[in-house]
Amino acid sequence: MSKLTHLDADGRASMVDVTDKDTTFREAVVRGRVRMQPETLKLIIEGGHKKGDVLTVARIAGIQAAKRTHELIPLCHPLMLTGIKVELTPNEADSCVDIEARCKVSGQTGVEMEALTAASVAGLTIYDMCKAVDRGMTIDAIHLVEKKGGKSGHWQLGED
Amino acid sequence: MSKLTHLDADGRASMVDVTDKDTTFREAVVRGRVRMQPETLKLIIEGGHKKGDVLTVARIAGIQAAKRTHELIPLCHPLMLTGIKVELTPNEADSCVDIEARCKVSGQTGVEMEALTAASVAGLTIYDMCKAVDRGMTIDAIHLVEKKGGKSGHWQLGED
Amino acid sequence: MSKLTHLDADGRASMVDVTDKDTTFREAVVRGRVRMQPETLKLIIEGGHKKGDVLTVARIAGIQAAKRTHELIPLCHPLMLTGIKVELTPNEADSCVDIEARCKVSGQTGVEMEALTAASVAGLTIYDMCKAVDRGMTIDAIHLVEKKGGKSGHWQLGED
Amino acid sequence: MSKLTHLDADGRASMVDVTDKDTTFREAVVRGRVRMQPETLKLIIEGGHKKGDVLTVARIAGIQAAKRTHELIPLCHPLMLTGIKVELTPNEADSCVDIEARCKVSGQTGVEMEALTAASVAGLTIYDMCKAVDRGMTIDAIHLVEKKGGKSGHWQLGED
Amino acid sequence: MSKLTHLDADGRASMVDVTDKDTTFREAVVRGRVRMQPETLKLIIEGGHKKGDVLTVARIAGIQAAKRTHELIPLCHPLMLTGIKVELTPNEADSCVDIEARCKVSGQTGVEMEALTAASVAGLTIYDMCKAVDRGMTIDAIHLVEKKGGKSGHWQLGED
Amino acid sequence: MSKLTHLDADGRASMVDVTDKDTTFREAVVRGRVRMQPETLKLIIEGGHKKGDVLTVARIAGIQAAKRTHELIPLCHPLMLTGIKVELTPNEADSCVDIEARCKVSGQTGVEMEALTAASVAGLTIYDMCKAVDRGMTIDAIHLVEKKGGKSGHWQLGED
Repeated sequence: MSKLTHLDADGRASMVDVTDKDTTFREAVVRGRVRMQPETLKLIIEGGHKKGDVLTVARIAGIQAAKRTHELIPLCHPLMLTGIKVELTPNEADSCVDIEARCKVSGQTGVEMEALTAASVAGLTIYDMCKAVDRGMTIDAIHLVEKKGGKSGHWQLGED
Repeated sequence: MSKLTHLDADGRASMVDVTDKDTTFREAVVRGRVRMQPETLKLIIEGGHKKGDVLTVARIAGIQAAKRTHELIPLCHPLMLTGIKVELTPNEADSCVDIEARCKVSGQTGVEMEALTAASVAGLTIYDMCKAVDRGMTIDAIHLVEKKGGKSGHWQLGED
Repeated sequence: MSKLTHLDADGRASMVDVTDKDTTFREAVVRGRVRMQPETLKLIIEGGHKKGDVLTVARIAGIQAAKRTHELIPLCHPLMLTGIKVELTPNEADSCVDIEARCKVSGQTGVEMEALTAASVAGLTIYDMCKAVDRGMTIDAIHLVEKKGGKSGHWQLGED
Repeated sequence: MSKLTHLDADGRASMVDVTDKDTTFREAVVRGRVRMQPETLKLIIEGGHKKGDVLTVARIAGIQAAKRTHELIPLCHPLMLTGIKVELTPNEADSCVDIEARCKVSGQTGVEMEALTAASVAGLTIYDMCKAVDRGMTIDAIHLVEKKGGKSGHWQLGED
Repeated sequence: MSKLTHLDADGRASMVDVTDKDTTFREAVVRGRVRMQPETLKLIIEGGHKKGDVLTVARIAGIQAAKRTHELIPLCHPLMLTGIKVELTPNEADSCVDIEARCKVSGQTGVEMEALTAASVAGLTIYDMCKAVDRGMTIDAIHLVEKKGGKSGHWQLGED
Repeated sequence: MSKLTHLDADGRASMVDVTDKDTTFREAVVRGRVRMQPETLKLIIEGGHKKGDVLTVARIAGIQAAKRTHELIPLCHPLMLTGIKVELTPNEADSCVDIEARCKVSGQTGVEMEALTAASVAGLTIYDMCKAVDRGMTIDAIHLVEKKGGKSGHWQLGED
């Protein structure tokens, strides 16, 4: 039967022991979005045409956060990420910024938490930089879309 | 005209100078949720009847993350939070865990980023602890619901 | 003659260069305890029957601290721990909480500092959560009990 | 009746809300020791006659750890420490290094956790630097000896 | 006679106790530069005309580093900076990027270390982003140019 | 044509993906200096004859900073350094302290940023400890002098 791997036999939180897992290539892709007023998005895009600073700062913040995932998420293992990519795309049709974060590692445990953390912190940073004009922004639909490597192999959203 | 306060006159990202702002009591409340399969929620609740560890770990992670907001969000100021509260409530009707984070400070700048960070990291931690049984969980609708203090006074969602 | 490996030939503090050491499986086990008033222990145990929060929070804090050992201990190397386990057992006979921390890695240097740090911070967290009712608690007898791997092989307390 | 302030009415771990506490001068003094073989202590002392590096590095590590207490201890508040002092004294009679840590702040919450953390990490660092010659060292008797400020006023060990 | 304030009467490193110092407004301005090949500077400037990313990332890194000064510099006090500004100006005449960092706080100790750290890390980040084309870059002349507040009042370079 | 590897095809800052790079032995050596008044250097040297604390603290700070390079420099990869060495040599002829930092790793990316960070933070710490007597000190000429390993092989300053 399926169970929560972070709880031991007595139901106590514990770190999964990955000592005996194989070191394989791992990759995870996460998507999400920050919903906002059309005027807010316009300010970001216009800034973007000139300097792109809101999205640059948010992208950098997401990359940096991925590296600190094991400090933020109590039962995550430290990992030596070999690649972190955060893409932020203004989406005028849905009045949001689309977030995509991708992490890679050769390691004993998956990198979905790293990609989820990168996407979340990129979204939080967009909120921070635009909050003076739009308090009602929402960080939405942060979810895993693809995962490679490890015992479970290749997983894509919608396949389960 | 409204503008993005984190970009200076030349459109470059910068930290807002709050040196001359008054020190006042500030509070922010943020809500969000982690959507999941009903079976996943059931495992959390059953664990909860015994030890409640998933929610306890996530609550602790959220509290700790709030204290590190200024490290994660590049242009946030360091703050001496006097209160951080994270509530996580299983919601069977909507098959999710409801998140509420509340931060307080006596300071020169608001604490909405701290509450947003607490809520997001609490959600990420729930994902981490349950991902072995449910990869499709989604962190959703992280948004500010109330804000007190500072020049803008009392703000509540829906009032704008 | 035996010497302090963290001091170089001139007696200056330095990090041991482990570049040429073999990568082997390493494990360390540390024990210690937090002594307290019987009433304090009773409060922890009773809480434990309901939610176990003091010990859960302390266990999480110990696990997280192990991951940050190289930041806290100036001459420790960064390590990619594959397993961290912290067990906290109320001991009514001795009016204390017994601490056991176990760390694992496949690496070029031992993990005793990581296990010692986990045990110490778990103990400090117990102190923090109970200090309102018992200021006189003592963190006691934090010591290595077993060590595997590396050039020195298997070591157990009492064998020297 | 006395209770654990870090557990709320439902027994869930939470941060104590200090928003309404007065800002007063606070001070805490903690003592402890690292027990070791007489030969180990001799190496430290001899090093000390030349450069004192073991004790200097441990003192620095303790000071730095005090500043990060709120990151290590999950429910501690961030604090702006105005003074941190760590004294390490070789004690040949008891074959140990005596540790004393003292922290000061003007704030809304006490600094005993900061002093306890400083003392513990100083002890761990002594262990780290001497472990190549003495694996059996023990970090012992880390305890609060004095506390000033706040609602509880002046407290000294033995007075309760 | 002048003396090193971070060494106590016995010559041991210690944190200056600022408990009794007045809380006053403090400001510090630091300058420095990263010298490089003219072709390297040209790449930065051309990038700058489009997106300015090298300088944006370096500016963000400098701001973030200022907030972590007390973690990096062992005897620095934690501070609640109210303003951090990092300006990076391409200087074709001298084939370098000029760095200026300015920090502000209302506190009991000066902010020159925060401004020095911001300037240094901004310079290191420029090096990182351009090192693939120019390994010989030099971070040069990081120095304090102005300091306000505290017992020593207003100081400007060249006045001593 | 040479290009800035940290900017992608669209000129956006990104982390270089090193997933497919070989794991090889890497080493980097960096030099720099802190210029100061002859009297300041004399105080350091005299302290050094007794306890050497300024240089010991600075050396420790440099070693610790190297381990945190990936947190400070936004697009740096996390690395498991196997050796960090910081040498600080008083230089009376030039009225400065000469800094040399050397880092080693077996990894997929070079360690020059780690050595540059170690040297810079060692220099900043010297400034901090002596600033009470000499505000005009300058951190100067932080530069790479040698680099081994990776695709580019052995590089020495002056060879390009």
